[in-house]
Amino acid sequence: MGEQIEVVGRSFVDHYYHLFDNDRPSLGSLYQPTSMLTFEGQKLQGGEDICAKLNALPFGQCRHVVSTVDSQPSSLAGGIIIFVSGSLLLPGEEHPLRFSQMFHLIPTAEGSFFVQNDVFRLNYG
Amino acid sequence: MGEQIEVVGRSFVDHYYHLFDNDRPSLGSLYQPTSMLTFEGQKLQGGEDICAKLNALPFGQCRHVVSTVDSQPSSLAGGIIIFVSGSLLLPGEEHPLRFSQMFHLIPTAEGSFFVQNDVFRLNYG
Repeated sequence: MGEQIEVVGRSFVDHYYHLFDNDRPSLGSLYQPTSMLTFEGQKLQGGEDICAKLNALPFGQCRHVVSTVDSQPSSLAGGIIIFVSGSLLLPGEEHPLRFSQMFHLIPTAEGSFFVQNDVFRLNYG
Repeated sequence: MGEQIEVVGRSFVDHYYHLFDNDRPSLGSLYQPTSMLTFEGQKLQGGEDICAKLNALPFGQCRHVVSTVDSQPSSLAGGIIIFVSGSLLLPGEEHPLRFSQMFHLIPTAEGSFFVQNDVFRLNYG
C-alpha cells in the first residue's frame, strides 16, 4: 500500500507539471468546484477560478523540476496527500526559483483523482 | 469559516513549535496510532515512533521561526490542512535552515485535534 501510494503520488506530480509546463489551460480538468488553492497566500476556490489564476500568472512557458515527492494516505478513504519540493525555471531567468507545493487528492467515481487542496509557496532563501 | 480555519491553523502551529522548542517529549500527545510522519523522506507511523524520531534528532535546544501559515479545510469533516514555511535555528549555528512542513489535523471526540499527516522537508537553496 505504501509503495502504491508513492507510485500514484509520483505519477500525479509528473502529470501535473507536464500539463502546467506544456498545456496550462488543461489543468482545470484536475480541479472540481470544491477545490481550493492557496497560491503565495492568495486563496481561490473552484476549478474555474483556480485555472484562471494559473493561466494569468505573469509568465508564459516555464519548466518545473521536481526534487522530492513525499506521499501519504490521508485518513479519507482513498485520499492521498502529496508534498513536493522543486525548482521553477522561468523564461529569460538565469536562476531557478525554489518552491514547495502540497496536494490533497480525492478519488473520483470514475477511478481517477481530483485535487481538493493545493498550497503553493516559493521558498525564499 | 475561512477566517476560523486560519485562526485554528495559526494557533496549532504556534503550539506545535512551542512544544518542539521547549518540551519536545510532549509532542507525542499530538499524534495517534494512525498518524504518519515523513521526515526528510523517512517514513514513520504512530505517535510512539514519531515522538521517538523527533526526540532523537541530533540537536538539542532549537528555535523555529514561522514565516507563513496557509490553512484550508480538508474535505474530511472538520479536518484542516496546514502548510508552514519557516526557519530553524540550531544551537551553535550562525545561519538558520529554511524548512517547509505540512500537517493534516483531524478533530478528536474531545473537541481537540490530532496530527494525522505530517511531512517535513528542509529547503535546500
